[in-house]
Amino acid sequence: MRFGIYLPPQVQLKPCPVLYWLSGLTCSEQNFMTKAGAQRYAAEHGVILVAPDTSPRGSDVADDASSYDLGQGAGFYVNATRLPWAAHYRMYDYVVQELPSLIEAHFGANSARAISGHSMGGHGALICALKNPGRYRSVSAFSPIVAPSQVPWGDKALRAYLGDDQANWKAWDACELVQTASERLPLLIDQGDNDEFLKVQLKPHLIQEVCDKTGHPLQLRMQPGYDHSYYFISSFIGEHIAHHAKAFQG
Amino acid sequence: MRFGIYLPPQVQLKPCPVLYWLSGLTCSEQNFMTKAGAQRYAAEHGVILVAPDTSPRGSDVADDASSYDLGQGAGFYVNATRLPWAAHYRMYDYVVQELPSLIEAHFGANSARAISGHSMGGHGALICALKNPGRYRSVSAFSPIVAPSQVPWGDKALRAYLGDDQANWKAWDACELVQTASERLPLLIDQGDNDEFLKVQLKPHLIQEVCDKTGHPLQLRMQPGYDHSYYFISSFIGEHIAHHAKAFQG
Repeated sequence: MRFGIYLPPQVQLKPCPVLYWLSGLTCSEQNFMTKAGAQRYAAEHGVILVAPDTSPRGSDVADDASSYDLGQGAGFYVNATRLPWAAHYRMYDYVVQELPSLIEAHFGANSARAISGHSMGGHGALICALKNPGRYRSVSAFSPIVAPSQVPWGDKALRAYLGDDQANWKAWDACELVQTASERLPLLIDQGDNDEFLKVQLKPHLIQEVCDKTGHPLQLRMQPGYDHSYYFISSFIGEHIAHHAKAFQG
Repeated sequence: MRFGIYLPPQVQLKPCPVLYWLSGLTCSEQNFMTKAGAQRYAAEHGVILVAPDTSPRGSDVADDASSYDLGQGAGFYVNATRLPWAAHYRMYDYVVQELPSLIEAHFGANSARAISGHSMGGHGALICALKNPGRYRSVSAFSPIVAPSQVPWGDKALRAYLGDDQANWKAWDACELVQTASERLPLLIDQGDNDEFLKVQLKPHLIQEVCDKTGHPLQLRMQPGYDHSYYFISSFIGEHIAHHAKAFQG
């Protein structure tokens, strides 16, 4: 597994908290580090940035070469239970357990964690936080797939990785997890209203509705004119890092 | 010809000045816009960013497909005089004349211009400014090829585009142009001291020497630990844009 990491200057003086960033479909560990312009904010706030790849990789790893939205580059941050995926596709365990253990042992990180991501990775950030009360100080997402069970991208991936029984999908769907969350960790979501995937794949009103119903704290910000690109992320990543830095201090 | 452009919010209120960015070998009009994180600084200062491609393009345009440092992606910001290049390779005229005319006519730009660039584009920025007294309010460069006549990249390109007579290269070499400059426009240069091309291709001490000899104002900043990448550019582009913005106000 490959990951990108940015160490702020403060790490030379004391252990620093970590923001895990989960990228979207087709991305590797490079996209966020190259395009988001996040390093300057991480340097200001003394936050380590860690960006894992979006799936296992390699010629011995199962793939669907004809699809950008299944297999390599599209792990969906779940633990797969169906063959051939189950052998390697355990991105959830990797992101929540293995990777933080490695980062905290070898990179001057303390155990304060936050998590964020984009699109498929926004889904990943939300489910990792909702499934692990107390493990993350804060969570945010850009343009997340909030209800994978109800949209084409999620239906395709969850059916392949978990099987046809949709009851098994609920444990990996933020809109389901909000309804049973034992911790009221506030959700910060930014969504461009000119996003080409807004109406078919993202549907942020679905998480607004379940949060309204359950009283789960949510700040859903519809950002006028923005699309699904990293230009959108680069425009607001500073505010997200400030949000997480405040949680680290609190 | 393709170019990238960023319009700051201020352009809706009044015409804004323009910073032209010239990229390095292999780049297109995309690299700077995607990787430099310059937009937030341009928005702060009300500066339009324009990033042209690094050469003419297309199947009818001469190329050396075996070389990353000659032909398409490697125009070197000269007007070629040798065949087959002379037909299309007139990047100097394009950058200095055609492109600003287009930008100032159609994008809410005023006629205040600055120019900067990286590597081959740093060379381009320096020669465009030095050859055109009064045309640019300020100039800066990251990791520029300051003396193309004296290094392998420049020797290969200038020989192909201009012919074997090195007397014809002097008009396209910053270290030569500094010696005859009629305008003392200050040069700001940032150079990483861990740049893999520092000793063979870049040789910033050569421009330091001619500026010392002629009294041309130069601020050459050797930045410890930085390499030739866009991470280096993203670390200091804010200071360069502030530098140009100050010149626009002055």
